[in-house]
Amino acid sequence: MSNERLIYLPLGGAGEIGMNAYVYGYGAPGKERLILVDLGLTFPDMDTTPGVDLILPDITWLAERRDRLEAVFVTHAHEDHIGAVAQYYDRLGAPVYARAFTANLARRKMAEFGYPEKAVTTVAPWPEITQVGPFSVGYVPTSHSIPESSGLVIDTPGGRIVHTGDFKIDLTPGVGEPFDHALWESLAAPGVKALACDSTNVFSHHEGRSESTVAEPITNLVAQSGGMFVCTTFASNVARLKTLAEAGVRAGRSVCLMGRAMQRMVEAGHESGVITDFPPTITPEEAASVPRGSLMLIVTGSQGERRAASAQLAGGKYNGIVLKEGDTFLFSSKTIPGNERGVIRIMNKFSEMGVDVIEGDERYHVSGHANRPDLDVMHKLLKPQMVIPMHGEHRHLREHVKLAEANNLQGILAVNGMMIDLGGKAPKVAEYVETGRTYLDGSTRIGALDGVVRDRIRMALNGHVMVNIILDEEDDPLGDPWVETMGLAETGRSRTALVDVLEEDMSVFMGRAQKKVLSDDAKIEEGLRRVARQSTQREIGKRPEVTVVISRLTD
Amino acid sequence: MSNERLIYLPLGGAGEIGMNAYVYGYGAPGKERLILVDLGLTFPDMDTTPGVDLILPDITWLAERRDRLEAVFVTHAHEDHIGAVAQYYDRLGAPVYARAFTANLARRKMAEFGYPEKAVTTVAPWPEITQVGPFSVGYVPTSHSIPESSGLVIDTPGGRIVHTGDFKIDLTPGVGEPFDHALWESLAAPGVKALACDSTNVFSHHEGRSESTVAEPITNLVAQSGGMFVCTTFASNVARLKTLAEAGVRAGRSVCLMGRAMQRMVEAGHESGVITDFPPTITPEEAASVPRGSLMLIVTGSQGERRAASAQLAGGKYNGIVLKEGDTFLFSSKTIPGNERGVIRIMNKFSEMGVDVIEGDERYHVSGHANRPDLDVMHKLLKPQMVIPMHGEHRHLREHVKLAEANNLQGILAVNGMMIDLGGKAPKVAEYVETGRTYLDGSTRIGALDGVVRDRIRMALNGHVMVNIILDEEDDPLGDPWVETMGLAETGRSRTALVDVLEEDMSVFMGRAQKKVLSDDAKIEEGLRRVARQSTQREIGKRPEVTVVISRLTD
Repeated sequence: MSNERLIYLPLGGAGEIGMNAYVYGYGAPGKERLILVDLGLTFPDMDTTPGVDLILPDITWLAERRDRLEAVFVTHAHEDHIGAVAQYYDRLGAPVYARAFTANLARRKMAEFGYPEKAVTTVAPWPEITQVGPFSVGYVPTSHSIPESSGLVIDTPGGRIVHTGDFKIDLTPGVGEPFDHALWESLAAPGVKALACDSTNVFSHHEGRSESTVAEPITNLVAQSGGMFVCTTFASNVARLKTLAEAGVRAGRSVCLMGRAMQRMVEAGHESGVITDFPPTITPEEAASVPRGSLMLIVTGSQGERRAASAQLAGGKYNGIVLKEGDTFLFSSKTIPGNERGVIRIMNKFSEMGVDVIEGDERYHVSGHANRPDLDVMHKLLKPQMVIPMHGEHRHLREHVKLAEANNLQGILAVNGMMIDLGGKAPKVAEYVETGRTYLDGSTRIGALDGVVRDRIRMALNGHVMVNIILDEEDDPLGDPWVETMGLAETGRSRTALVDVLEEDMSVFMGRAQKKVLSDDAKIEEGLRRVARQSTQREIGKRPEVTVVISRLTD
Repeated sequence: MSNERLIYLPLGGAGEIGMNAYVYGYGAPGKERLILVDLGLTFPDMDTTPGVDLILPDITWLAERRDRLEAVFVTHAHEDHIGAVAQYYDRLGAPVYARAFTANLARRKMAEFGYPEKAVTTVAPWPEITQVGPFSVGYVPTSHSIPESSGLVIDTPGGRIVHTGDFKIDLTPGVGEPFDHALWESLAAPGVKALACDSTNVFSHHEGRSESTVAEPITNLVAQSGGMFVCTTFASNVARLKTLAEAGVRAGRSVCLMGRAMQRMVEAGHESGVITDFPPTITPEEAASVPRGSLMLIVTGSQGERRAASAQLAGGKYNGIVLKEGDTFLFSSKTIPGNERGVIRIMNKFSEMGVDVIEGDERYHVSGHANRPDLDVMHKLLKPQMVIPMHGEHRHLREHVKLAEANNLQGILAVNGMMIDLGGKAPKVAEYVETGRTYLDGSTRIGALDGVVRDRIRMALNGHVMVNIILDEEDDPLGDPWVETMGLAETGRSRTALVDVLEEDMSVFMGRAQKKVLSDDAKIEEGLRRVARQSTQREIGKRPEVTVVISRLTD
């Protein structure tokens, strides 16, 4: 037994919020049998990933060891936990396990890629367990902002690991199971080797609030509103959808869900049995003919996403509906840092239409993650030998380690790529594994360091100059260099067209170039690039990207 | 007199926060004499303005009427009020007026452009007035987050306008004049036609807090901290700099200001006399040899700006200083919406270094703008005939109109380009003027709608394909099309190099093209662009920007 080890290796989610992917392994070093907990994605932004469609964890390490991978266990159906399951099924091929609601959504993703239903296995909650290789894995219900979110009990010959997944401590979550202190405490009975624990809200010092606390404020708000009432939240927050819909019905309004994600979630909720008593809803077609004072829309796009229903409504007509003076739009959500601009854009468009917007009001939203006092509760219930903070940026993980230590527990700060040996009394770094990000770009996966996106950013910041020259069989220029620009001012300092200035300067360069330059493509390119940069700098104060194309006539 | 009118025309700042520029006019319609209040700029972002250096208001309307422009009055030295004064001195040429501290900074800007000192005139505060054309303009001291911020009393034959500038109601602002209720109330004596009023914090429902409230918490924090103490705030918040420096000195630390903006502000404060008792500071060179427990740095970069001192420190060494475990970094500031990602990036880098970061803690920062109850106070002190909300996005202006109406005052929602006739009992729209944004891009000014930045964004989102073909005197292709790509994956679906696939497809197109196509550059370009897009879409799922260069041999 002493030859075997128990390891933890985050490939995503540790040192960032997004694209969770946590490997556990047990066995002889280098031959451990492996499981993967969650396989999520994260979303691009214009600053760092323009044009990218989705960001996936780089799972090269795991793909190269797929023969040792027993299974993928998905804790819940948020995109940062489930989003890459189908994207990477080709590279991992391991069976995927999840509870009913999550499995329903995972199968929809698999279907989009043409993978079979049986790629995903539905599991029942703890105390049922799934045995794969040396691992016994049980799904322990917890509360979060999506149905059937679960922590995992991972029993191995090296000891028990409890992986919280995303959680909060909510005794009245509306939809789904309440947090069960006794159940969680019972997990500690055989002793817990390591607690891998959500760190998202470690900086929130007050006790978390229950989902149920938003019902009354929302109900009052809807009841007081005159015109059409429109609200947005995360589509996956089924409990919130229900609260919102119930408030609408109570105020005598017909309720309509708009946006594909919204409809998909409610469908999955019904199919998997987590939704049993959702208020009646009407279709968008029916909604168009309901008087506005009798209508409530629940729409996608709480983060200001450009293609979602909220942005469409802010832009004008959507599904035949136009908002106007006297209507109300509620963000029953929190704006994730980085999405502020998009949300503010929508708020101002609604303001221009005369719509009253309510955003950032704590009465109408609660977080789905455990706050600091709730993390304390989790530490105390599980009494683990060590705490491994996860699901957080570096600052969250670091703070969570401090919190663990304040609770007299060992903590270890492990970021993506740090393989931790959990075998000893104290956790220790066993190895550093190369990790990173893979971009889904159009239909292709590219590496974050391939330079493709870097080049896009450079073109966006600096503009692009294309230079074209033709040389004959004797290496003599045939005509003058030809220049096109994109993303650069047309004229600058000299008030002559920039392309004319550049062509002139390049003609001079070519005219002066010696044979040994003209016979050498690399030298010509280097020279013309330098001229293009210098002349553009002088004319308009920018140093552009330059592409030089040299054509040589040889026939 | 009945032929003359009093007008208000925002060219920037109304419907946005940033680049303030408010025109007032008095005279016969179309012949009004004009003054401009403030001439600011705003900052670009990667989402909408990649590569742009600064964003200025489009002042074409005013430049075309510069013979009627009497003067530019700057209320205070924040960049969104003063930033374009020198940038546009060539186009407006009007004398610039400001109080001493603001004028000091305005002159520094003028000097950078080679304009003379006398372009800026220093004025004394109310009751002194400056007479230009039909306007008598007085500077009324107010409290804000920069020294000598002032409201303007603008007396005209058509009545008195009070333009608040940016303000808060602070009786103990630390540096600069406290808000003087009696003084402001006295302005109402002759009757106020219109109150143009700051709207920034109209959604903040609690009474604003004084600058002085942060002193004790900051002092306690510094006293409790062990290692080096580093803090950042807006360089222009001289009162805060003083509070921070005093806390440092009280804790027995040597204080060092780092970052050019920081040093410039303190210098201007001393030169203009607004700083009289700033604690002693040491130079960065001296700081490098002070033991870390005895050192406090006050640095630029509270908004995560990449080149500022905070980002440099987060990146490693700066001015010989390296932060480490046990040090503390305080953001004595608020992150402006849109800047979150930059600030978070820095926080995580500090976390990696082991530095404790304090951010978003209300105890260590107060806003410089009047909250909703303070706006009520201003409305009641001035009792204007009409309220014109300014300095706000659309949603702020709209809410401020509602607030005015709740206070039984007329309000008008005027966004950039709406010329308001203030002459009658109620304000009314006289005209719509074309306004917009001008980009300083490198050393050139370009229009926001010129397409230059749009092209950059397209290249960033879609990548760029450059196609090159040569045709001989008979319109026959000479060799095959030549393709280069930038910002696109190298291979896709077919596992062949994308450029090879594109060249192949284009060769096929050229081979099949008829004479009437080959003789027509526009037709060739259209065809090759279509092929490039279709083939790239098929290969990698993207529709790139395409530049086609056709060279024809004619000699």
